[in-house]
Amino acid sequence: MHSLQYFSTTFEAQFSMAGFPTSPEKLYEACDYFLRLGGKRIRPVSVLMGNELFGDVTADAFRVATAVELFHNFTLVHDDIMDEAPLRRNRETVHVKYGEPTALLAGDVMMVRAYQFLTQVNPEQLPRILTLFNKTATEVCEGQQLDMNFEVQEEVSFEEYLHMITLKTSVLLAASLQLGAILGGAGLGNQHHLYEFGKKLGIAFQVQDDYLDAFGDPEKFGKQPGGDILANKKTFLLIHALETLDEKGRKHLKGLMQSGEPGKVGKVLDVFSDCKVDSWAKSLKEKYFNEALRHLEDVAVLSTRKKELAAFAAFLMMREN
Amino acid sequence: MHSLQYFSTTFEAQFSMAGFPTSPEKLYEACDYFLRLGGKRIRPVSVLMGNELFGDVTADAFRVATAVELFHNFTLVHDDIMDEAPLRRNRETVHVKYGEPTALLAGDVMMVRAYQFLTQVNPEQLPRILTLFNKTATEVCEGQQLDMNFEVQEEVSFEEYLHMITLKTSVLLAASLQLGAILGGAGLGNQHHLYEFGKKLGIAFQVQDDYLDAFGDPEKFGKQPGGDILANKKTFLLIHALETLDEKGRKHLKGLMQSGEPGKVGKVLDVFSDCKVDSWAKSLKEKYFNEALRHLEDVAVLSTRKKELAAFAAFLMMREN
Repeated sequence: MHSLQYFSTTFEAQFSMAGFPTSPEKLYEACDYFLRLGGKRIRPVSVLMGNELFGDVTADAFRVATAVELFHNFTLVHDDIMDEAPLRRNRETVHVKYGEPTALLAGDVMMVRAYQFLTQVNPEQLPRILTLFNKTATEVCEGQQLDMNFEVQEEVSFEEYLHMITLKTSVLLAASLQLGAILGGAGLGNQHHLYEFGKKLGIAFQVQDDYLDAFGDPEKFGKQPGGDILANKKTFLLIHALETLDEKGRKHLKGLMQSGEPGKVGKVLDVFSDCKVDSWAKSLKEKYFNEALRHLEDVAVLSTRKKELAAFAAFLMMREN
Repeated sequence: MHSLQYFSTTFEAQFSMAGFPTSPEKLYEACDYFLRLGGKRIRPVSVLMGNELFGDVTADAFRVATAVELFHNFTLVHDDIMDEAPLRRNRETVHVKYGEPTALLAGDVMMVRAYQFLTQVNPEQLPRILTLFNKTATEVCEGQQLDMNFEVQEEVSFEEYLHMITLKTSVLLAASLQLGAILGGAGLGNQHHLYEFGKKLGIAFQVQDDYLDAFGDPEKFGKQPGGDILANKKTFLLIHALETLDEKGRKHLKGLMQSGEPGKVGKVLDVFSDCKVDSWAKSLKEKYFNEALRHLEDVAVLSTRKKELAAFAAFLMMREN
């Protein structure tokens, strides 16, 4: 069995060679530029590890891993347009560097290219692979729409936010693992548990993400905390605080979030602390992480085979930046 | 054998029932809104007719026809964003009605939905269908990028424009016919001729489109001609005029095109007439139309089977609006 690090390196080597055509230059330059910004390649690695759990890693697994990473990057390019984000991984976003029309099209061709890789999967497994991929792709788009809705929706419940996060970020991790499992020849039960493992892990990861943005150690986190608070973004923390507070406290917190006063971040963090949002978030993350691990335990393969996936999960949960 | 009209009606009935989910409401409302704007459904009809040329129309042909129409609408929604177009078929474009982020996502989910329909095709033919579809989808995106490049590119040659038009509009018509032929069990030679028939027909159609915009009878054309001239758009006509004129005439025409003077359209049309652009365009259209028909003749099925496709081609060439 191979480690996250091994698969990440192996995938990166193949991925960087899965180049685009050269013409029209501007279009494919934009694609190349974005794909070279890197990233953790968590999703393709999940495909490969999901495969290896049940058998030797196949060439098809690399194809599906590539498709998943292309799809993920397609969503990032389009999300950046929708969010009018100037930076991604500290570099200019595609629409800033190449203009919005080219960024839109670059996303579109990345998506088509994802399907080009999927199409090469062995025909026997192709329909199952495509069906799961399509379902997941649809859900990710739905999640992004919900996320945008929430920006203007006054009240967002914990359940609504959880649903949005599940669609927007967790299902792709879940599906990546299941796609690998399908290619490895896993039965439906094992596929299900691996999917749920990824889904719960994705939620735990997002809880942690929201937590770190508010309470992360600036030294380790690499940036000043409070970005979500400054942007008046709905997060697990804000939603829980609003659900915990009484009417008066709720009004006060909402007022703070909408304000642009200099001490905003500190004041909101004070409210969060008063509501014990930090310990609540920690235990929420633990809850989903443990649920994830239970699903991994339920996958019916020798537990020694699962060691690397458990380490992968632990790595995601140790993230400090 | 069935007519364009028959297939158009039959397709429309099935297509209107191929509904989207209901949530997130705004996202799927945007999709529904756009798909209900109608259109000639030329491409799905081409799939069905391409199929029927070689055998009974299958359920798969309707799936592929739906996919092709969804893909076409996806490109229209995204093109409208890129072109900042306020209207499509005299109704508000999706980004005007629902905002740009939702329009972008609506396009994305239409595209995924296209693949959902393709995925249901019988597994034996699925890889071939997907391969052609993916290739075509990529080319359409490339064509749109070239079209945008041409807006800021000072000199565009006839060959460059022809290449752009082929990618942006002709290959989808060509591929639609070939996809139908594949489902009908056609051999490679017949597939090739049907593809070329569609490609040449698409080019002839675009020449006609450019011609009508300049020289169309306002009574029959339904709008004042000269839209392309007012928008300083590169067309077959403008490019040919520029290639025909001497240096002085070229300078004069370029100046006119960039100007905003009231009599602009009339003056440009005068130059076009002086260069005999109108008769040139007519014969160019004839040339491609005849090439298209020759490829149809070369399809090795009884000529009685081809009658409806020939009528379909003639219908496209008689268009006056």
